Amino acid sequence: MPKRKDDLTSDIGWSTPDRISVRGLDLPSEILGHMNLGDMAFLLTAHRRPTPEESTVFNAIVVTLVEHGITPSAMAARLTYMGAPEALQAAVAAGLCGLGTVFVGSMEGAAKMLYEALPEPASGDADLDGIADRTVADFAARGQIVPGLGHPLHKPVDPRTPRLFQIAAENGKSGAYVDLIQRIQVRAEERRGKPLPINATGAIGAICCEFGFPWQIVRGFGVMARAIGLVGHLLEERTDPIAFELWQRTEEEILKNNGPAAKSAKP
Amino acid sequence: MPKRKDDLTSDIGWSTPDRISVRGLDLPSEILGHMNLGDMAFLLTAHRRPTPEESTVFNAIVVTLVEHGITPSAMAARLTYMGAPEALQAAVAAGLCGLGTVFVGSMEGAAKMLYEALPEPASGDADLDGIADRTVADFAARGQIVPGLGHPLHKPVDPRTPRLFQIAAENGKSGAYVDLIQRIQVRAEERRGKPLPINATGAIGAICCEFGFPWQIVRGFGVMARAIGLVGHLLEERTDPIAFELWQRTEEEILKNNGPAAKSAKP
Amino acid sequence: MPKRKDDLTSDIGWSTPDRISVRGLDLPSEILGHMNLGDMAFLLTAHRRPTPEESTVFNAIVVTLVEHGITPSAMAARLTYMGAPEALQAAVAAGLCGLGTVFVGSMEGAAKMLYEALPEPASGDADLDGIADRTVADFAARGQIVPGLGHPLHKPVDPRTPRLFQIAAENGKSGAYVDLIQRIQVRAEERRGKPLPINATGAIGAICCEFGFPWQIVRGFGVMARAIGLVGHLLEERTDPIAFELWQRTEEEILKNNGPAAKSAKP
Amino acid sequence: MPKRKDDLTSDIGWSTPDRISVRGLDLPSEILGHMNLGDMAFLLTAHRRPTPEESTVFNAIVVTLVEHGITPSAMAARLTYMGAPEALQAAVAAGLCGLGTVFVGSMEGAAKMLYEALPEPASGDADLDGIADRTVADFAARGQIVPGLGHPLHKPVDPRTPRLFQIAAENGKSGAYVDLIQRIQVRAEERRGKPLPINATGAIGAICCEFGFPWQIVRGFGVMARAIGLVGHLLEERTDPIAFELWQRTEEEILKNNGPAAKSAKP
Repeated sequence: MPKRKDDLTSDIGWSTPDRISVRGLDLPSEILGHMNLGDMAFLLTAHRRPTPEESTVFNAIVVTLVEHGITPSAMAARLTYMGAPEALQAAVAAGLCGLGTVFVGSMEGAAKMLYEALPEPASGDADLDGIADRTVADFAARGQIVPGLGHPLHKPVDPRTPRLFQIAAENGKSGAYVDLIQRIQVRAEERRGKPLPINATGAIGAICCEFGFPWQIVRGFGVMARAIGLVGHLLEERTDPIAFELWQRTEEEILKNNGPAAKSAKP
Repeated sequence: MPKRKDDLTSDIGWSTPDRISVRGLDLPSEILGHMNLGDMAFLLTAHRRPTPEESTVFNAIVVTLVEHGITPSAMAARLTYMGAPEALQAAVAAGLCGLGTVFVGSMEGAAKMLYEALPEPASGDADLDGIADRTVADFAARGQIVPGLGHPLHKPVDPRTPRLFQIAAENGKSGAYVDLIQRIQVRAEERRGKPLPINATGAIGAICCEFGFPWQIVRGFGVMARAIGLVGHLLEERTDPIAFELWQRTEEEILKNNGPAAKSAKP
Repeated sequence: MPKRKDDLTSDIGWSTPDRISVRGLDLPSEILGHMNLGDMAFLLTAHRRPTPEESTVFNAIVVTLVEHGITPSAMAARLTYMGAPEALQAAVAAGLCGLGTVFVGSMEGAAKMLYEALPEPASGDADLDGIADRTVADFAARGQIVPGLGHPLHKPVDPRTPRLFQIAAENGKSGAYVDLIQRIQVRAEERRGKPLPINATGAIGAICCEFGFPWQIVRGFGVMARAIGLVGHLLEERTDPIAFELWQRTEEEILKNNGPAAKSAKP
Repeated sequence: MPKRKDDLTSDIGWSTPDRISVRGLDLPSEILGHMNLGDMAFLLTAHRRPTPEESTVFNAIVVTLVEHGITPSAMAARLTYMGAPEALQAAVAAGLCGLGTVFVGSMEGAAKMLYEALPEPASGDADLDGIADRTVADFAARGQIVPGLGHPLHKPVDPRTPRLFQIAAENGKSGAYVDLIQRIQVRAEERRGKPLPINATGAIGAICCEFGFPWQIVRGFGVMARAIGLVGHLLEERTDPIAFELWQRTEEEILKNNGPAAKSAKP
């Protein structure tokens, strides 16, 4: 439990009648027209403007996380919108609630693994192969899967990963962590004897380490990006809905399988 | 209630083992590295790439909506995070739930008012002054305030508004709707006899009309942008919390005002 | 926008080291063991203990609202739980977010209609037939359906309605409002020429009027009751899940209908 | 990740035109008028009717969890309602989102601890003192606090605990788990050298073990109960709001501490 404090403080920003300041920048004159939405997200999480190179890489990361088709999250948002179309914000909220350990968890898991394996990336003489070996062995010993590797659909390669690594490399964000996760992949594939592509969340986890973002924040990038994707789904649901049909089919099937007719049919 | 449909469909995108498509574009090769986060939001709401000019204006709109200091929404998110720090996504969701008619409602209200006043913006010979007159008179007759005008803090000018209109003008998005809301402001100020600045939500509502976005979508821009801002608040809450202090103060004050001592003090 | 106030106050309750008071009652000695969960809900909404008769009727109302099978709300909760099983509270929250105008709206709509039609129920000489006529005519003139009538599945009778009216009658809660909604039903059926059963939300709306609950509160009964039902769904999802299958089927169908194969098949 | 399944099934219930069944009981004739809201919650979590004694104990448990004054959860709900009064369900959802590990976590933690310490409660000859010793020692060795003990306000006794244990004892639900947590308390107090009262969540955790509820469900009781309490808070917020004042005070204080005046005052 936190301690009491005398004063409430926040460094995020403030407003006076004629000024609005966000993280030390004047919103109208220094942000609007100068920074895109990804840059604004960077400002609020890194607490400074991105360089042009950082802007390119960071925008690529969050753009990757915006949209994944008809996910459980998108379905939950659409089913919610059906019941409360007057409260679009609540439908987005419902969709976000499911971004927990099962889906976005692998992104923060990958970043955490890499930071714990390599706390001091700057020292150039780390034995990355040895570290990769130990990391994979440790996960195996604990009976855990290595986060950020493998994908049920995208194999043998997740098409987002080489592109993200390329953008990172072209913009000075491909260092020891990107190197390390690739070595971890090789060891993990050897040990498991099957392809284990670095998936998008693994690639993003590694690049977040290159930026130095704490692993505890990484889930936040997924959450903010997915909010954008969910708005897209709700706009489509508004004009071309699927939620009602999903509901009716499900109800009918369960009535068939568990309703009175089903029970009487059982011997 | 919607009708049944034989097939579930969605035009948002699809994935195969080696491809990911979003609104007809190949995510790795055509989106990543080419589009920033605001462009991606545009793609998912307008269903096409923005032009460079549109990208500048649209990014300015959504960037404006990201952060507003310690709003009720930010407070709700921080109080939620205090109880469930393991579920950052749920704290963002809690913060979004309050983006209803009171705060973001004025943005969609402004867009709706403008579309209803001027359904056909292309015809250059509309009598905008006459339309402004009638619009202000209609709201007054219904006892409603004109949406998008006035601000409790930012007066006589909301500093975001002239900057947004400047960016719109420099990029070909300052047409009849931006013109009309300014005439509406003049009429409303005459009628009320006090300054009624076009606030940021009014400016954004007008510019959204220039883009042709349906007014029902406009709230979605506020929701997606605020998700980014809320993540920023939760990161600060993680290292420099205010929620616990807020809670303790409130509980103490209510105990003082309504607890057993208060009751016995009453005559 | 509300006004500032000097003191924060709340009459709900307070705690001291050795006492906990809720709405003026001592929780350990006056509530625990003496009041059931529905009585506690009554205490917090009516601000007094229910009589035994009120307890019976009020519990019947909220019990009716707990569970409705695989609703969109239950599906949203289950899909959310799949992604974040560590945050059961967020899955319940997601399920509640959709309890808006489409589903629970008819309950508050029925109560509002009845209060507006009969603001003074005590005067025994109201012309209920005349009021019913005018009410039905007014809704028809506005092109609106009468709230609380009709059900897609339960016809010609919603089996909950006669039972709720029976419980209300046996416990002194069947007065002018229950009478009025039945007369409204008769007029509406005559006008439409088809059976329009009073559905459960209509019956509950009318009984809430007998209690004198403001119509704006009525949605709250649906929300609290459904929270219980959603916990039941999530416990089943934990051991016998359906969300994953729902997701996979939907994704596959949309890939078939909108994926690359579908596009190339079109002439 | 779960496996695919051919058929969607649910044992919760089903509806036909003239029948509604919940967990095998006919809703109108077997539930309405016969079961109170707590009994309905029991039916949906234990999958059978409670006995009269079980009804008394279970209702006492959930009633205890309904209301805790101005908690962070209640504050979040009220702040949300202020922005979206048209979506009461979303305000309740926001309040629920924070019921995570920090607050309701101790309830499931206590139940989990007791089940792990005593997997077979039926065998009467367990050495409960030895088990209590080992349990307290294990938590101390891991540097963890014992869940369910201690309270920041209610000391030396949480007034809910003796009453809950009394109700449990009078109704045949005070067995080995209630015994064990009391022995754990004694050992923990000896080790820590200060009073560590069994708090309400500890008492409830132990009684849930007497019922045999899986510890993973226990949080659900807190969530469903709090939904009722939150509706009570929102009804008060509707007529006697505090959220606006909370917001204004906070914003003013942060402007004073972090705004432009504060910065220029620093040397």
